Amino acid sequence: MNALLDQLRAIVGATHVLTHDDPATDLSAWENDWRQRARGCALAVVRPGNTGEVSEVVKACAAAGASIVPQGGNTGLVVGSVPDDSGTQVVLSLTRMNRVRAIDGANLTMTVDAGCVLQALQEAAEQAGFLFPLSLAAEGSCTIGGNLATNAGGTQVVRYGNARDLCLGLEVVTAQGEVWHGLTGLRKDNTGYDLRDLFVGSEGTLGVITAATMKLYPLPAAQLTAWAAVPSLESAVALLGLAHQHLGAGLTGFEVMGQFALSLVAKHFPQQRVPLWEDTPYCVLLENSDSESEEHARAQFERLLETAFENGVVSDAVVAESLQQAHALWHIRESIPLAQAEEGLNIKHDISIPVSRIPAFCAETDALLEREIPGVRLVNFGHLGDGNLHYNVQAPADGDPKAFLREQEARVNTLVFDAVARFDGSISAEHGVGSLKADKLPHYKDPVALALMRSIKQALDPQNLLNPGRVLPR
Amino acid sequence: MNALLDQLRAIVGATHVLTHDDPATDLSAWENDWRQRARGCALAVVRPGNTGEVSEVVKACAAAGASIVPQGGNTGLVVGSVPDDSGTQVVLSLTRMNRVRAIDGANLTMTVDAGCVLQALQEAAEQAGFLFPLSLAAEGSCTIGGNLATNAGGTQVVRYGNARDLCLGLEVVTAQGEVWHGLTGLRKDNTGYDLRDLFVGSEGTLGVITAATMKLYPLPAAQLTAWAAVPSLESAVALLGLAHQHLGAGLTGFEVMGQFALSLVAKHFPQQRVPLWEDTPYCVLLENSDSESEEHARAQFERLLETAFENGVVSDAVVAESLQQAHALWHIRESIPLAQAEEGLNIKHDISIPVSRIPAFCAETDALLEREIPGVRLVNFGHLGDGNLHYNVQAPADGDPKAFLREQEARVNTLVFDAVARFDGSISAEHGVGSLKADKLPHYKDPVALALMRSIKQALDPQNLLNPGRVLPR
Repeated sequence: MNALLDQLRAIVGATHVLTHDDPATDLSAWENDWRQRARGCALAVVRPGNTGEVSEVVKACAAAGASIVPQGGNTGLVVGSVPDDSGTQVVLSLTRMNRVRAIDGANLTMTVDAGCVLQALQEAAEQAGFLFPLSLAAEGSCTIGGNLATNAGGTQVVRYGNARDLCLGLEVVTAQGEVWHGLTGLRKDNTGYDLRDLFVGSEGTLGVITAATMKLYPLPAAQLTAWAAVPSLESAVALLGLAHQHLGAGLTGFEVMGQFALSLVAKHFPQQRVPLWEDTPYCVLLENSDSESEEHARAQFERLLETAFENGVVSDAVVAESLQQAHALWHIRESIPLAQAEEGLNIKHDISIPVSRIPAFCAETDALLEREIPGVRLVNFGHLGDGNLHYNVQAPADGDPKAFLREQEARVNTLVFDAVARFDGSISAEHGVGSLKADKLPHYKDPVALALMRSIKQALDPQNLLNPGRVLPR
Repeated sequence: MNALLDQLRAIVGATHVLTHDDPATDLSAWENDWRQRARGCALAVVRPGNTGEVSEVVKACAAAGASIVPQGGNTGLVVGSVPDDSGTQVVLSLTRMNRVRAIDGANLTMTVDAGCVLQALQEAAEQAGFLFPLSLAAEGSCTIGGNLATNAGGTQVVRYGNARDLCLGLEVVTAQGEVWHGLTGLRKDNTGYDLRDLFVGSEGTLGVITAATMKLYPLPAAQLTAWAAVPSLESAVALLGLAHQHLGAGLTGFEVMGQFALSLVAKHFPQQRVPLWEDTPYCVLLENSDSESEEHARAQFERLLETAFENGVVSDAVVAESLQQAHALWHIRESIPLAQAEEGLNIKHDISIPVSRIPAFCAETDALLEREIPGVRLVNFGHLGDGNLHYNVQAPADGDPKAFLREQEARVNTLVFDAVARFDGSISAEHGVGSLKADKLPHYKDPVALALMRSIKQALDPQNLLNPGRVLPR
C-alpha cells in the first residue's frame, strides 16, 4: 500500500494525499458521515486537481486493487460517501476541482467541474442573468458532482425536476480510469444508450463524475410564496391539482407540513412565528415563479386561493408581502429537521408515493404506527408536489429517545417500508441508497431490476473497485 | 425453425403468427421500411396480446437462437424496426397491446401499453382533462413503445422534453424473457441505477418495452401561434432568448424555416399561402401555451414581438387569430418534408448543435457544401428551440435527383457530419441510429462511450438476440 501512496503522491502532489501517518492531519471531515451515523477510516484522502489526475488515480488504485470512495461535499444522508473502517479505501475527494468551465447563455447551459459547490453555481448562474434551479438544504456545502451522483432532489423539483433532469452532459472517469468525454450541451442526442442517466444516481459505484453540463433557465421576473392551511391531506392534494391548473409551470414549490412538525418549530424556535398552524392538521407552502411581474404573480395566486377557498380545500392563507417574508416562510419549512433534532433523536424516512395515494397511505400508516407504538409522534412533511414525504417518527413524549431509536428503528422501518411497498412507493425518494439502505433493496426492489443492476455493475466495474457495498449490497 | 413457429403459435395463437408460408399473407407493412430505404424478409411476424406472451415469445426465440426485431408503428426513420433480409428474424409487433391501463389525474400520470398509437394517447389524455404533450409528424401511426425505444422528439420538446423526459416508469421484457415490473408513477425514486433511461432510446436492443407510465400536464387555457420573419439565423437565436425570457415555460414551440424550404411549400402547395417568406432568409414559428387565458397569451406575444422589433431581431410578424389559422401555420411547417419530396429525392439529416453555435455552423457548412457541390440547395428547417435542425440537401435545380443521391449521398453525409463534429453536435438528434447510422457511430462517438455501450449490450443481451446490428454495428 505504501507503493500506491507514493504513486498517488506522484500524481496529485504530496500535499494533496492526506493520510493518518501524519498525526497532525485530521481526516474526520472526509471520514465522518454527515449525520454521524458512521465513521470510517481511509487509507488516504486524495484530492486531484483535474480530470487527468482523477484518471491516473483511478488507474493506480485499480492496479493496486484498492477500492475508491468518490466524495463531493460529503453531505449525503445515506452513508454513501465515507470510507468503511478497514483503512484500505481511498477517498477520492473532488472538491479541488471547482471551476465553472463555461456559461453559454444562448444555449442556456453551464459546464462545471464536479467539485463546484451548489450554491456557488446558483450564484454564478445568477450573475450571468440566469437561474440554476437545483436547491436543497445542504447547498452551501454539497457539490454538483455529489448532487448528480445521488440524483439530488430538493425544493424545486415540481417544476424543474431532479438533478438528473437538469443535466445534459457528463465527463466521467470509468472504473478502468478511462475518460468519457460526454460534456454535450445538446438537448437532443439520440446516438446510443443513455450513459449520462446511468451514471447520474449511481452513487459513485459505476464511475467518477468529474464535470457536467447543466441546464440554465431564464430568471423569473418575480417569485411569490404563499402559506395555506388545509383541512386535510386530501385537500392538500386537491390544492396541488388546482395549483397545477392555475399556475402551470409557474408552480415551482409545493411543500406540505403536518401540524406536529410545525408545532416543533413553534416550540423550539418561537422567534419564527409559524402562521396558521394551530387550528389545522396540515399547512402547505406554495411558490409561484412568474416570467412577467410580481403584480401578475400576485393576481394569479389570488385567483388560485379564491377558487381553493370556494372549493373548501383551503381554510386560511397568507401571501408573503416581501422577499423577506417569503424567506421567513421557507425558513420555517427548512427548520423542521432542526426542530425535530431539538426534540430528540428520531427515525427519518425519505419516501415517495403516487400523489393520489398519499392521503390513504398516511391515514393507514399513521394508524398502524400508533397502534404498534402507543404515543408515537409523526413528523410528516415534504415535497408533496413530487409525492415525496419525509415521514419521520419521533419517540413518544414521555419516552427515552435513545432507547426508542435503539429498540424501535428496525421495526419502524419495516412497518413504514412495507406500507410504502403496498402503496407502490419508493423507500428512497431523493436521498439514495448508500450503505444505509443497501441491504433493504433485495427485499423491496423488483428482482429483475436488481439482477439488471448487478449485471451492469459487473460489466462496468468488474473489480468492484468503485464505492463497493453501496447501492448493491456486498 | 418450424419447431419455433409451432411454439410461437402455441403462445400467441396461430392467427397472430404471420409467415410467408401463406401466400395470401402480405407482410410488407412489417417488412418495409417507412421511408422505403430497406425491405426485409422475416421468419415470422408475431403479435402477442399481453406482456406474458411477449415474455414467452422472447424465451422461445432465445432458446432457438432466433433474433428478434421489436416493432411498434414501424414509422422510424433510420431503418431500426424492420427485419434484415435473412428470413430468420422474428418481428415482434406490439400493436395488439393497445390498452390505456390507467389514468391517475391527481398524480398526473397515465399508464399505457406499448402498442398504443400516440394520437390515441393524446386523445385519451384530453378526454380526461389533461395534456399529453408528445407530438410528432407520425403521431397517427407511431406507438408509444416505439416513441420510447427511440426517445422520440417532435415539436414540443422546448417545453416538455423528449419522450424520455415524459416517462416515469416502464415495464420491460429482458433479453432472457424476464419481466421487469417498473411501472412506477413516482417523480422521485432513488433506489438504484436508472434502468428506465437505459431502455429508453436503446432502440429495442436491450429489452422490449411492453408498457409505460407517462407524465400528464394540465391542459393549457390557451395556445397561440405566431409567425415571424427574422433577418438572420443570429436573429432567430436572439428571438429564442427573448422568448424564453418573456414567455418562460409558456414557450412550447420554436421552429425555424429557411427561405428555400418555404419556397418549396409555396411552389408545390400554393393553396397553403406561406406568409412573409419572400423577403427574408428565415421565418420562425412560435407557440405560446398559457395557463391563464387567450387574452393573456396574446398580450404576452405582443410584448415579446414588440421588444423583438425594437431590437431588430424580427422584421415582420403575424399572430394567428384563430385555432384554424394556427393549424394552418403549423401545417406549413409540417409540409416542408412533403414539398421536398415533390421537388425530388434529397439527402436528409437530423442533427443537433448547441443553439449558440447554430448560426456559425450553418454559415460554414452552407458555404462548404456550395463550394463542394455547385448549385446544391439547402432545405434547412427544424426545432431551433432544441438546437435540432433537419439540415437537408436537395440536388441542384438542373441536376438529376436520382444520380445526385447515388453519387453524392455518402460524400454529403461525411461533409455534414464532420462539420457537426467540429461544432460539438450530434449526427442524430431525434431519429436515432437504427441500421442507417450504426456504422457511423464508431467514427463520430466518443470511443469510451462506445466501449461502455458494448459492455452494457454484452451484459444485458449476451446472445445478441435483440435487434442485432442496430445502434451498435454488428
